[in-house]
Amino acid sequence: MKFVNTILLSALSMGVVAQEPKNVIMVVGDGMGPAYTTAYRYFADDKNTLEVEQTVFDRMLVGMASTYPARISGYVTDSAAGATALATGVKSYNGAIAVDVDKKPVSTVLEWAKEQGMKTGIAVTSQINHATPAGYSSHNESRKNYNEIADSYFDRKVANSFVLDVMLGGGWDYFIRDDRNLVEEFQNVGYQYVDNIAELETADSTQPLLGLFAEQGLNWALDMPPKQRLKTLTQAAVNHLENDQGFFLLVEASQIDWAGHSNDVGAAMFEMQDLAQTMSWLEQYVDAHPDTLLVLTADHSTGGFTIGANKIYRWEPQWLDNLQASPYAIAKRLMAAEKKSALAADLLGFSLNDEEKSMIEAIDTQDEEIAYQTVKALLDVRTNTGWTTGGHTGVDVPVFAKGPGSEMFRGMLNNTQVADNIFTLLGQK
Amino acid sequence: MKFVNTILLSALSMGVVAQEPKNVIMVVGDGMGPAYTTAYRYFADDKNTLEVEQTVFDRMLVGMASTYPARISGYVTDSAAGATALATGVKSYNGAIAVDVDKKPVSTVLEWAKEQGMKTGIAVTSQINHATPAGYSSHNESRKNYNEIADSYFDRKVANSFVLDVMLGGGWDYFIRDDRNLVEEFQNVGYQYVDNIAELETADSTQPLLGLFAEQGLNWALDMPPKQRLKTLTQAAVNHLENDQGFFLLVEASQIDWAGHSNDVGAAMFEMQDLAQTMSWLEQYVDAHPDTLLVLTADHSTGGFTIGANKIYRWEPQWLDNLQASPYAIAKRLMAAEKKSALAADLLGFSLNDEEKSMIEAIDTQDEEIAYQTVKALLDVRTNTGWTTGGHTGVDVPVFAKGPGSEMFRGMLNNTQVADNIFTLLGQK
Repeated sequence: MKFVNTILLSALSMGVVAQEPKNVIMVVGDGMGPAYTTAYRYFADDKNTLEVEQTVFDRMLVGMASTYPARISGYVTDSAAGATALATGVKSYNGAIAVDVDKKPVSTVLEWAKEQGMKTGIAVTSQINHATPAGYSSHNESRKNYNEIADSYFDRKVANSFVLDVMLGGGWDYFIRDDRNLVEEFQNVGYQYVDNIAELETADSTQPLLGLFAEQGLNWALDMPPKQRLKTLTQAAVNHLENDQGFFLLVEASQIDWAGHSNDVGAAMFEMQDLAQTMSWLEQYVDAHPDTLLVLTADHSTGGFTIGANKIYRWEPQWLDNLQASPYAIAKRLMAAEKKSALAADLLGFSLNDEEKSMIEAIDTQDEEIAYQTVKALLDVRTNTGWTTGGHTGVDVPVFAKGPGSEMFRGMLNNTQVADNIFTLLGQK
Repeated sequence: MKFVNTILLSALSMGVVAQEPKNVIMVVGDGMGPAYTTAYRYFADDKNTLEVEQTVFDRMLVGMASTYPARISGYVTDSAAGATALATGVKSYNGAIAVDVDKKPVSTVLEWAKEQGMKTGIAVTSQINHATPAGYSSHNESRKNYNEIADSYFDRKVANSFVLDVMLGGGWDYFIRDDRNLVEEFQNVGYQYVDNIAELETADSTQPLLGLFAEQGLNWALDMPPKQRLKTLTQAAVNHLENDQGFFLLVEASQIDWAGHSNDVGAAMFEMQDLAQTMSWLEQYVDAHPDTLLVLTADHSTGGFTIGANKIYRWEPQWLDNLQASPYAIAKRLMAAEKKSALAADLLGFSLNDEEKSMIEAIDTQDEEIAYQTVKALLDVRTNTGWTTGGHTGVDVPVFAKGPGSEMFRGMLNNTQVADNIFTLLGQK
């Protein structure tokens, strides 16, 4: 025992000897600061037991990462600079898509994987040319150049090949345009195309795959049957990517961030559930495929979301349990409804008190934004949730890892080290 | 290498073989959620370099801890239930001081250390009978029973001895009362007493020690020369506790929480600096005394503090760099001043714009609370800081550790496991 201990300690002190993974699955929870993973534990908690149950996140936490961008953009990052850091190991300015502060392209771990002969893919709930997937798969001086980024997925070759073998998410607005139909172009070079999630099950796994399921981002998880949309995309992506040379897959739970921007605690918790279901399946996948490294982190936190607010020591996520639709969809239905309070009780899944009834009855039939605000405000009071911004905040984010090389992600990381570690594990000197 | 790797992996998979530490130094940053340790990095950052410098916290992060109390108190803890969990390994109700949900006393790691023949001490910036130190050193159904808790430090014996060999912090109001003078009682049984931090240097390190330096909590770090007040207390405590049988020391940066309750970003960053200076010294101490385990965590987060707010992607802690006093002390001086704007610029350390001058000139000479709010609001706008509550929030907190056994604190812990690990490392079966 003494001997083991000595070797262990010396191995630890000289840095862990990591095995090289065959496959790497990088998951980004966009906007998923520590309040989100914590809140999800209490949202998912079975309130009928004395214990609070562990989540899949709890089982895999290994450390935290800082998120600050290049000096020129201060301490609060956007998703583009965040993705650039996680994908390339280079800090850049807010808005940068895998380019450095001088706007020069910097290579990404996904491209490196491609160059090593691995297959590559993305499975996201935003449009597939949104900041995070673009940060792994493209280079552009601005995240806002959506069409250029979409075009680059077809036009730019890496190791004489298309950069992505599998692309799953939203984006009809960018891939089927008046000036260019990228879907047809991809089909013409042998990609299968599907525009319905149900078709993923029957797609031929030997061919490259493009699946687009919305104009831009997918519908909220709460509004999208079948539930488990990200898990379905992820399973299909893995199924198409598995091969002898290994694969690199980027998965993004893109809309945790969008819920944070909207200060929408209901949408946020169900987007977290969508991610948790995905992570549970990936956890089992790594157990069954111990040559696969799974890493999850966030690019930043969003909304200044807090578990408790207003001097009250209480957070009650159980009021979200029976939501029948997203707060946004509920608001839209209430605008058109005659018996607003009764419908609100049905859709929210609980009886309204008099104050809540007054709020709901006062919803204008015209102003969608105010209707949505009303539903969110009601849920914020019920749950006692706090927010400080419609933008991002600078808090460090949790890091989760499992599989060969996961030891390298322990402790406090700079977000750039997430990319550095993956480059190292995939053989870059 | 293969052999080392195999042994390493099997050691890791069966749980790390920990060495038993001789000394344990447990540090609590009260209210120090992840936004505080992150923010401190940017506050301490040298803005003239391209890189953001690592902090002592960054070097020691090993994981995170949940903070929720017993089911009966929901998901947001107070400091008493937080201390009880960290000290005893038992979740209890908010307000509980080392008693379980049935109000039965549960033994603490500090008491266990005492029973093993180790010396014990507390060094805190609150009164020494405040919730956190009390959670390690006393048992009471309510944190509010300050006099009973103070009395128990003298009246209750552990292993035929006083529970604490060293007590440093505030508390004249509770230890020198009309009905009882605990200071004299401690002096009568051989404790040295000091009431001035400067006297700590010359105190006889062979005798037990009581040092009280304020009616209740110590002054804000910003208002207390010499700076580095917690480091000074900690050094004195360690100096008095070192002995062949080892020691257990609880250090608490108590007033990070108080700054959070006040939504005072200036006070918060300098309380973090006070803790960082303490941790830097402790880091060196552990390097020089590799038989000492150092653990730092928080009991919860406070204030819903966010790095950035109001949809603006910016956080500018540099506006706090030249504060000449705490925002509270500045507010009090401004109430009495004639040329308020000029004095404010002097005390805040930067020139005021016209809007700020108007805010400051409008400060009432009568209402201390509004004057303090005004100074805080000015700094919140300058720094772009957000807050959601004057109370606590439920976000998971970071965990830091160094020294023998620190591996046991890796990953995601329940706060009770902090106590469980220390019990195990100190030989409890």
